[in-house]
Amino acid sequence: MDHYRHITLPGGFVAAAAECGLKSSGEDITIIAAERDAAAAIVTTRNQIVGAPITWCRSVLPRGYGKVRGIVINSGCSNVCTGKAGLADAKTMAALVGKQLGCEADKVLVASTGIIGHRLNMAKVRKGIAAAGGQLGRRNDAAVARAIMTTDTRPKSAIVQVRIGGKTVTVAGIAKGSGMIAPSMATMIAVLTTDAAISPAALGRVLKAAVAPSFNAVTVDSDTSTSDTVALLASGSAGNKPLASTTAAYKKFAAAVQEVCCALAREIAADGEGATKTIEITVRGAKTPADAELAAKSVANSPLLKCAVHGCDPNWGRIVMALGKSDAKVVAEKLSVKIGPTIVFARGLPKKFDVRKVSKYLAGDEVTIDCNLGLGKGCFTALTCDLSREYIAINADYHT
Amino acid sequence: MDHYRHITLPGGFVAAAAECGLKSSGEDITIIAAERDAAAAIVTTRNQIVGAPITWCRSVLPRGYGKVRGIVINSGCSNVCTGKAGLADAKTMAALVGKQLGCEADKVLVASTGIIGHRLNMAKVRKGIAAAGGQLGRRNDAAVARAIMTTDTRPKSAIVQVRIGGKTVTVAGIAKGSGMIAPSMATMIAVLTTDAAISPAALGRVLKAAVAPSFNAVTVDSDTSTSDTVALLASGSAGNKPLASTTAAYKKFAAAVQEVCCALAREIAADGEGATKTIEITVRGAKTPADAELAAKSVANSPLLKCAVHGCDPNWGRIVMALGKSDAKVVAEKLSVKIGPTIVFARGLPKKFDVRKVSKYLAGDEVTIDCNLGLGKGCFTALTCDLSREYIAINADYHT
Repeated sequence: MDHYRHITLPGGFVAAAAECGLKSSGEDITIIAAERDAAAAIVTTRNQIVGAPITWCRSVLPRGYGKVRGIVINSGCSNVCTGKAGLADAKTMAALVGKQLGCEADKVLVASTGIIGHRLNMAKVRKGIAAAGGQLGRRNDAAVARAIMTTDTRPKSAIVQVRIGGKTVTVAGIAKGSGMIAPSMATMIAVLTTDAAISPAALGRVLKAAVAPSFNAVTVDSDTSTSDTVALLASGSAGNKPLASTTAAYKKFAAAVQEVCCALAREIAADGEGATKTIEITVRGAKTPADAELAAKSVANSPLLKCAVHGCDPNWGRIVMALGKSDAKVVAEKLSVKIGPTIVFARGLPKKFDVRKVSKYLAGDEVTIDCNLGLGKGCFTALTCDLSREYIAINADYHT
Repeated sequence: MDHYRHITLPGGFVAAAAECGLKSSGEDITIIAAERDAAAAIVTTRNQIVGAPITWCRSVLPRGYGKVRGIVINSGCSNVCTGKAGLADAKTMAALVGKQLGCEADKVLVASTGIIGHRLNMAKVRKGIAAAGGQLGRRNDAAVARAIMTTDTRPKSAIVQVRIGGKTVTVAGIAKGSGMIAPSMATMIAVLTTDAAISPAALGRVLKAAVAPSFNAVTVDSDTSTSDTVALLASGSAGNKPLASTTAAYKKFAAAVQEVCCALAREIAADGEGATKTIEITVRGAKTPADAELAAKSVANSPLLKCAVHGCDPNWGRIVMALGKSDAKVVAEKLSVKIGPTIVFARGLPKKFDVRKVSKYLAGDEVTIDCNLGLGKGCFTALTCDLSREYIAINADYHT
C-alpha cells in the first residue's frame, strides 16, 4: 500500500483501485469519487464509432457538464462494438459503483480502455468494484494511476496549485494513453480532480478550452480511439468564492487546468508506443490558426519524419514535404525551418549546416522543430514521438 | 545488354538508360523519346512544395497536355527545394536531351526522384545524358525500368494491347515508387507510352480518368511526394483513326490505359517500403463515392491496422476504429466488415469466427478487407501494404 496523495490531493475526493483479472496482471479497475455531488465536465472522442461507456457518459452529461459523484474506469477491455448488451454492462458498472457511493447510477461516469469488440467479464468487474469500493478513503493514489494503464510503460500524473482569493486551489490529473492516439478528438483517458468551487457550466468551458492545446495537440499514430475521455470533477472544498467566467480568478484556475492537461499530454507523447523521444512541432506565421494546426499535425503525423528523427537524421526535406501536403496554405519561398536551434531551410532555400551537430541534437530526448510559414500570425504546437521498430513489435504482436 | 522490349513496344518510341553516379550504383538516368512529336499528357503532385522538374513540366504543358518529343528521368536526387538554380538545372537537362533528339528544350519533360534539398551534380548529369543519348534505338528497356528506381526492390511495368479499328494498339508503362507514397495526389513517377493516334486534349482526359482509381488509390505511408509525376506519350504509329472522345474505340483505349495504371499502382503497393504483402480495402455502401474514398483511405492509412495485418492478427476493431475516425459518415449499427471471405463484424456486432483460419488468411501475400457501410451506393477500393520493422529500418537509416 502506498501513501502518497495525488488524484485525491484536492479536498473532497476519495479513490481506490483493485485487481480483478481483466488485464493479465496488475490493478485494472478504479473508482474516483467525490464525497458529495461535484461539478463535472467531460470531453469525449470524435470517432463516430464509440464505446458503450462513451454512450453512457453522454447520457449522464448530455451537455458535457453537470453534477456527478464519481467515475469508474477499467482497463483490459474497452467495451466497444458490443451493442445493447455492452451498454447494459456499462450501466451496470455505474449502478454497482453508485451502490458503493450511495447514489444513483446516473451520477456515475464510466470509462473503459483495452481491446475492441469483446464483452466485459461482468463477474470479474463486480468483484473488482466491490474490492475497490471497500478501499475508498485509504490512500492508494499510486495504484489508481497504474490501474488505468494498458500499453503505457509508466503512470502519468500532474498537479498544479494556485492561490485564489486567499485559498489554495489544487488541480490534479492522471492519464493513460500510448497507442491509437491522434489529433482532432478529445483524447485517451484522463481524469482531473480539483477542489475549486465552480459551476458545472463554467467547468465545461474551462475543460473544453484546456483540451485544445493539450490532448488535442498530441498524436502518436494518427489513429483516433473509440474510447477517448477526459473528465474533470470539482468538489468545491477549497472554499473559494465560486469562479465566475470573466474574472481574473477564473482565468487563473483555467490556466492551472490547462497546465495539468498539457503536462499529461506531454507524458502521453513521451510514452507513445515504441517512443524513444518526444517531438514538439511548432508552426508559426500561418495564414490562420487553423492552418497552423493543420500544418503542425501534418508534420507530426508523417511516418517518414518520425522515422528520420528516430534515426537522428536531419532530413528537413521530410518536414517541408509534410508541410506542403497539408491542407494549410504553404509557399516554398516564404518558408523557413529550424531543427532545435539550427536553421536548416530559409525562405525556400537549404541552409548549410553542421550535419553532425544537428544529428547529435536529434539524439536527445526532446526534439523541437520550428516552422515559420511567413504568411500570417497563426501559431500551433503539436506533440508527437518518434516511430521505432518497437511500435511495429507492439502492434503486430498484440493479438485479439 | 538485354533485348526484351517493353516501354518501346508501342511503335514510334526509343529509350535508353545510363549510369552516371547520381545513385551509389546502377543506372540512374534515362531518356524515353518518340521518333517525332507525340501527343502527351501529364499529371503532377498536389503537394504545394514541388520540385524544379515539376515546375518545368508545368511550363512545358501548362494545360496538362500538348505535344512533346520525350522525357528525361534521373534517380538519386529529386531537385526539390533548390530555388532558381535548380530550375535552371532542370531546363538544362531538357536542353541537353533536346540536342540529342533534335528538338527544343520545351519539347522535353523532366522528372527527378531521390533526396530533397540537394542540387543535381550537373557534370554527372551531362555525362549521363550523353551516354543514354548514344544508346537510343538499341533495345534496353529493362535498364530503363531499373534506372528510375530508388528504394524500390524491383522494376515495375505493365503492358496492355487492344484491337481498335482493325489495328493493334499497345499501351506500355513503367513506374517507380516505394516510400512517400500517399493518396490525394497524382503519384510517384510513371511513364506510359502508346502507339495510339489520339489528340493531346483527349489524351489528357484519358490520363486524368485513369489516375483516380489507380495511382490515387495507393498509399504506402500517407506521405505525399514533392516529385510525383505520371506522363503518357502517344506516338500515333498504330495507324488507327484518331480516337474521338465519345466513341467505343476511345473507351476501349481509355480502359487499356486504366488497366496499365492499375497494374503499376498495384506493383507500387506491393513494393511499398518494408512491405511483405498488399492490402486491398474496399468500402461499399457509402453515402457518396467521396465518402467511400475517405473511409477506404482512412483504413489504408491506419498504422495500427497495417501492423495488425503484418502480424496476421484479425484485429477488426482497428478497421472499425479507422472507419469511424474518417470524415465519411459511418453508423456502427449499419456497418459490416469482412476479412477475406470471413464476416467478422455485422451490423454493429462482432461475429464469432475461426481466429486461426483468418490469421492463416492474413499470412498470405494479398489481403482483402471489405467494409459495407450500409448507407448508400458509394464504392472505392484503396491499395496499401503492411507496416513492418523494415519500413522503420529503411527510413530511420536512410540519411541525408
